Amino acid sequence: MEQINIGLLGLGTVGSGVIQIIDEHQQELQHQTGSAVSVSKVLVNNKTKERDMDTSHLILTEKAADVIEDPEIDVVIEVMGGITEARDYILQAIQNKKHVVTANKDLMALHGTELLTKAEENECCLFYEASVAGGIPVIRGITEGLASDRITQMMGIVNGTTNYILTKMAQEERDYEEVLAEAQELGFAESDPTSDVEGLDAARKIAILARLGFSMNVELDDVELKGITTVTTDDMDYCNQLGYTLKLIGLAKRTEERVELTVQPMLLPNDHPLASVQNEYNAVYVHGEAVGETMFYGPGAGSLPTATAIVSDLVATIKNLKLGAGSGFASRPLHTKAIQANEEVLSKYFLRLQVKDETGTFDDLTSLFAKEDVGFDKLLQWPLEEEDNTTSEVVIITHMTNRAAYERIYQELENMDVVLDVKSSYRVEGGQVS
Amino acid sequence: MEQINIGLLGLGTVGSGVIQIIDEHQQELQHQTGSAVSVSKVLVNNKTKERDMDTSHLILTEKAADVIEDPEIDVVIEVMGGITEARDYILQAIQNKKHVVTANKDLMALHGTELLTKAEENECCLFYEASVAGGIPVIRGITEGLASDRITQMMGIVNGTTNYILTKMAQEERDYEEVLAEAQELGFAESDPTSDVEGLDAARKIAILARLGFSMNVELDDVELKGITTVTTDDMDYCNQLGYTLKLIGLAKRTEERVELTVQPMLLPNDHPLASVQNEYNAVYVHGEAVGETMFYGPGAGSLPTATAIVSDLVATIKNLKLGAGSGFASRPLHTKAIQANEEVLSKYFLRLQVKDETGTFDDLTSLFAKEDVGFDKLLQWPLEEEDNTTSEVVIITHMTNRAAYERIYQELENMDVVLDVKSSYRVEGGQVS
Repeated sequence: MEQINIGLLGLGTVGSGVIQIIDEHQQELQHQTGSAVSVSKVLVNNKTKERDMDTSHLILTEKAADVIEDPEIDVVIEVMGGITEARDYILQAIQNKKHVVTANKDLMALHGTELLTKAEENECCLFYEASVAGGIPVIRGITEGLASDRITQMMGIVNGTTNYILTKMAQEERDYEEVLAEAQELGFAESDPTSDVEGLDAARKIAILARLGFSMNVELDDVELKGITTVTTDDMDYCNQLGYTLKLIGLAKRTEERVELTVQPMLLPNDHPLASVQNEYNAVYVHGEAVGETMFYGPGAGSLPTATAIVSDLVATIKNLKLGAGSGFASRPLHTKAIQANEEVLSKYFLRLQVKDETGTFDDLTSLFAKEDVGFDKLLQWPLEEEDNTTSEVVIITHMTNRAAYERIYQELENMDVVLDVKSSYRVEGGQVS
Repeated sequence: MEQINIGLLGLGTVGSGVIQIIDEHQQELQHQTGSAVSVSKVLVNNKTKERDMDTSHLILTEKAADVIEDPEIDVVIEVMGGITEARDYILQAIQNKKHVVTANKDLMALHGTELLTKAEENECCLFYEASVAGGIPVIRGITEGLASDRITQMMGIVNGTTNYILTKMAQEERDYEEVLAEAQELGFAESDPTSDVEGLDAARKIAILARLGFSMNVELDDVELKGITTVTTDDMDYCNQLGYTLKLIGLAKRTEERVELTVQPMLLPNDHPLASVQNEYNAVYVHGEAVGETMFYGPGAGSLPTATAIVSDLVATIKNLKLGAGSGFASRPLHTKAIQANEEVLSKYFLRLQVKDETGTFDDLTSLFAKEDVGFDKLLQWPLEEEDNTTSEVVIITHMTNRAAYERIYQELENMDVVLDVKSSYRVEGGQVS
């Protein structure tokens, strides 16, 4: 039986997961690819470091060239992370006509177009299923399962840390800071959680998905982002009363040939398929013109789930390689970039205000919205507890409006006499609460 | 640009959907396959029949040979349904070295192994994504996305009609008969709903999924089935009180190298991902050793969703065809069939009884369960309303037990003096209610 040799760049948790799956599922891999598959060389930082796993059957090296220039190696799997070195090594591997599988979302978000172009020029595969939503085969779902459809919208819960935090805040009515600390203790959040809680990690994945799903050369910078650090349990309470769930959503939307890309906390109706995705789980909801609604759900991270995605890419690579196939088709984008202007971005909004409880306040408010032609879908008003009765809290869910109009309203609200405080504002997506 | 010619067998709702997608998404198809794709000939029953669509650019024929023997035709798409003729035509097409895409679940469930073997022998593709769960790319998810994993369990809501009926029964507390009649009026159920409501349609899909996911030559007859016709709103009520949702689940489970295949109404904990799949939607929950839990969700039927799956198969076919590739690998099963004995089938059960409300009843019941070493997870007892107070209703959720022991208990219950009626019994799957 033919032998396929793998070079591994990196031997952290994901790298060891890859080795474990290749060892334990060797029979299945041979059945599917018609080849024996084994990891021959591994690039590590320190050859002499103590490791949890048995590495006696592996050749460890501290020199990248040992792996990417070895003529015996057919496929290079990059699980070292980081950007500069990973990019260099992948480019060199491709120049050496090696097929590449990577799990590196930072790299693919920033340099995906360049790397895919190089791979295509060299007739090499470059697969990166594990870079988005870990073990969920969503990239394959979009590129192959929905290959014939025109995708109009992707909404994803693509960051496990923030979904864990928001789930606990909603279920246990606990504050952001408290839940974050717990998540850090449990290993669901990094000690520096910035890239998760500010939405950057999700933005990388949305950039990758949008480039694929819309076949458009969008960049990470095109994704507008807002994190979850200012979300309060009061916001959660009101969402709950109104039949919504608050989630950090990565949204990529296409109207005609122009797109909108954003990551921000959004309200979803409770019966939306994404609303019931809990804890550290991920899900990507895809709307296609023909297929309608589909959703891919599963673990967004973790050693073995991520390694599953990598080894599945490896299987696809070996199949292509045996067929004499290169990178396939359509890695170049079909459409040139066109981002929607604020006037084109249509959405409903949730708005929570504290206002003076006096005659005329409501009239002032309603005329401001009326001037911009924005109607109210839902409106709640309560006197603020434990305050004198001169202050009320007002929660509004607007009808559909364009973002430019909403931003004008928002700015005026901040300057209005009767408005004491604009407590929070979120987009509302995913249809009507029934 | 190269031209790929398609022959279509059948021009019903799915067939017209296929033509619509190929026409409307021609630009995307060309970009992805590097070829112009068009339907050249269509087999119909009656060429002169009035149709809703414009067929002026198509050659309609009433002779199958015109399509499957035409040397200009590269790919045959079968959307005519039925078994005998469809099987003959597909076999002939394959012998003529044509690649085939089919949406025919009845055919694939009964003759899948034969057809896939013939395709492999002739180095032709035979793809059938649309045969399971319509627009959801679950077959691709299993064969490619989870290619490297060892799948241990698949649970599917794979019949839209029954899921619609059960959703309405639960949400609106209406009887089966009433909801079925409504579903028939709305077009969600056939005028003869037998194959849906008795579970046969779901069984076909589970046979197809199990064959693939377990790489085992299981047959339709290996799927045990029970439909939803005896489900009552009382059952729904108790499920609800206990934190469960009742769904018609197709289950394929592997323990070691032996499998269990069944379709039956089951209780799932409310927080199970399948529990919130509503109305006519489908979803397939897949558990893999490495990846853990994943789920694929979407429309299970409909002209355009089904056609999307077919045209995505067509894209995969054209890619393989241009690469000079045949049917790929691994369509032959890796494992020989091994079905679990009743003693190996482990599960919890929901049981609803009406018993005599007299001293000793509970003692009789508990000793029966104790004799088989089956414990109670939950137990409810109520006096029956509007009856004399000699009758009680008892609802039991057992701990995990093997099926053989449960069936012995069930039989004895039916013969016990103190048991007036065994009202219902369902399996409980999907983990613990938290």
